[in-house]
Order: sequence, then structure tokens, then C-alpha cells
Amino acid sequence: MRPAFDLSVYFITDPALCAPRGVAETTRLAVVGGASLVQLRDPAATTRKLVEEARALVALLRPRGVKLIVNDRVDVALAAGADGVHVGQSDMAAADARGLIGPDRILGLSITALADLERSDLAPVDYLGVGPIFATGTKADAAPPMGLAGLAAVRARTGMPIVAIGGIGTANAADVIRAGADGVAVVSAIAGAVDPQAAAATLAVSVARAKSRAGPAT
Amino acid sequence: MRPAFDLSVYFITDPALCAPRGVAETTRLAVVGGASLVQLRDPAATTRKLVEEARALVALLRPRGVKLIVNDRVDVALAAGADGVHVGQSDMAAADARGLIGPDRILGLSITALADLERSDLAPVDYLGVGPIFATGTKADAAPPMGLAGLAAVRARTGMPIVAIGGIGTANAADVIRAGADGVAVVSAIAGAVDPQAAAATLAVSVARAKSRAGPAT
Repeated sequence: MRPAFDLSVYFITDPALCAPRGVAETTRLAVVGGASLVQLRDPAATTRKLVEEARALVALLRPRGVKLIVNDRVDVALAAGADGVHVGQSDMAAADARGLIGPDRILGLSITALADLERSDLAPVDYLGVGPIFATGTKADAAPPMGLAGLAAVRARTGMPIVAIGGIGTANAADVIRAGADGVAVVSAIAGAVDPQAAAATLAVSVARAKSRAGPAT
Repeated sequence: MRPAFDLSVYFITDPALCAPRGVAETTRLAVVGGASLVQLRDPAATTRKLVEEARALVALLRPRGVKLIVNDRVDVALAAGADGVHVGQSDMAAADARGLIGPDRILGLSITALADLERSDLAPVDYLGVGPIFATGTKADAAPPMGLAGLAAVRARTGMPIVAIGGIGTANAADVIRAGADGVAVVSAIAGAVDPQAAAATLAVSVARAKSRAGPAT
């Protein structure tokens, strides 16, 4: 049985952007501000360092009731007891990842275009990371931006939980939710902010307001 | 229960050195020549590619009774059903790796100096990779060579199976065995040879002769 998770403000760590405060302290500020889910992402790190970082984040987040997702590395997630894994189109196939993490961990899958959605095996997947929505400087090998229209097109094709990613910040988070996302994934909008806690809080309010306005009861 | 394994001629794949024939064909030639164990090593590959390569090598090697070890990546080894994992000092700790692979897979640990041996938890480990013995151009971040004397010093401190690595080829394989190794790990001596099968065969003969001469009955 998968644990419940909240995609609203999904903070993704980055070693360079988090460097001024460190990954753990930046993540702590993000969560105090209102980040609802955290992904550890550090593709250049050694396995040893990733396991250490993942364990530190589990220790930080578990008492706060926030889940930790590990990017790409099933081995690291299992060794550290993280709550889930996020895989991209170049990472382990979703079915392989599910086979290793079992039924009790969260599995996310990146979708960079409608074609990814159509060719993917979604049965093992718990949520989709959809983007880049806008241009982003954080990920060097990112696909072309799909825009809000691209996000809406994905939303129209699936009822799965969607967290949108790519160039999202306080100025456009509400637009992204209105286009059909259940949450926004951010790196620089929190890690690169002068006040990461305040940035996370502002994002959380924007997302919550846009969700309540988009809801069927309003 | 761990499967039996033979360290005598331990072939480590390298995407650049194997490029002329491909990793699978180079490995096939190595094994036909006499390589007794194979390690898949490709630190720059995506997880998706690593899983595909590991599965191809398992399909190639299992009918031939040769075990496949995956460098660093426990997740890839598990997904592909490989026979073991080899970890270095920057990879997952041996105890963590053993916890994930269970009792039925082989676990190797790299030792680059006597100090590594003294500080390592060897209880979960099945064999040691010791080196670099000589200077090597294959691994950019290799530690300083320990020489045959360094290998002999490690041998004097442990009864564990040892495969020596680093700058080993047909010219010095016998010296390495006489200094206390149970086998030689090679990349370029096979993958970079004009005839990988013949190179593996020559290494296998050198190692077997040196072992029989070093044996207690001779």
C-alpha cells in the first residue's frame, strides 16, 4: 500500500543551487515554508554521497511527515529507506523500478511530451512529472518547453496525479495549476531564492488558492 | 548461499575500449578465450542503458557458466539478475550493498591501499579488488600504484580472495599471481588487444601456470 503524498509544492534539490546553505538546510527551510514533497537529485554524486544525503533527508523529513523521493537511483532509495523513486525516460523502466521497490513505495515518471505518455507503461506509476513547461536553466539536457497548452493536453489524456516542472515560480504557479497540474516542482524558485522558506510559503499559497478556485465546488 | 566464482581472468568492460566490437562481442571473445569472470563497468551510462547492457551480458554469460558482476550499481544488478556487485570506496558501503543484494549474490570491494583494508568492514565481502598495482591509463581517478610489494602486503594481512587490478597484462600477470593474487582484472589487456580472444587465452595460461607453480604441492 502506497503512502499518501502531496504534490502541491514539490521541492527538488540541486547541489549547486543549494550550496550556499547546504542541501539539508535548504530542504529544511523549504519544508518549514510549505514544501509538501522533496526529491533528492544529484546525478553527479557518488553512490556513497547519495546514500548519505538520502539518509540525512529521511531523518529530517520523516518527523515532519514529508515524503522523500530519490531521483533515478532505486539502490539509493532502498538503502536509505526513502519513500519513493522518480524515473525519467533514460532511467530504469517504470516496471523494473516497481519490481525492485515493491508495492509500498511511491513511483514517479517523467513525461516530456505527449508521445512519452502514449508509449509509457503507466500501470506501475503513481504520479507523472510533466515538463518542462517553461524554459529552464537548471537542467542542461531538458527537452523543449511544452507550455501550458502542452500540459493541458497531457492533463486531457490522463487522470493520473501530475506535478508540472520547468521554469515554474511564484509568478506562474497558479497558471500551471489552472492548466491541470496537481502541483508544481521547483528547484531554483526555492533553492535560488534569497529566502527559501518565504519562497516555499508563497508557492504553497499560490497553489492552494489556484486549486481551490479550480475545484468543482467553486 | 553464494555461487562459486573464479577470479583468475576477470574481464572488466569499458565502453571506449570495447567500442570497435561492442561490449557484448568483446566480452564474448574474452570468455571464449578464457576470461573466468566479467564485470560490467560504465559509470557514464544512463541507468536505462546499464540495465540493457547487463541483461545482454547475463544472456550471453549464463549459458557459458560465467558470472556477471555489476560495478557500483546494486539497482542495475538486481534489475538484470546479475550474479553480483563490485563496490569501491566511493560507492555504497559493503554492508548496505549486502543488505540489498541478499546472501545469494557475490560482493566485491576495491582496496587501493592497506589503509582501505584496515578500515573496511569485510564481513559482507566475498573478494577484494586490489590495486592499482601498476600505472594505468584506463581509470582517470585511479589511486597511486601500490606495486607488487603493496599487493604482497595486502596478501599478508588477509586470507580473502584477491583479484589484482591496474596495468596488468600478459607481460606481468604471472608476477602478480606470485605476489599473492588469485587472479588478474584487466580492461585494456583484453578489450584493447588486436585479438581479444587470444589475449584472454594468453592471460589464462599465464595465470594458471603461475598458480600451479605457486601452489603448495609444487
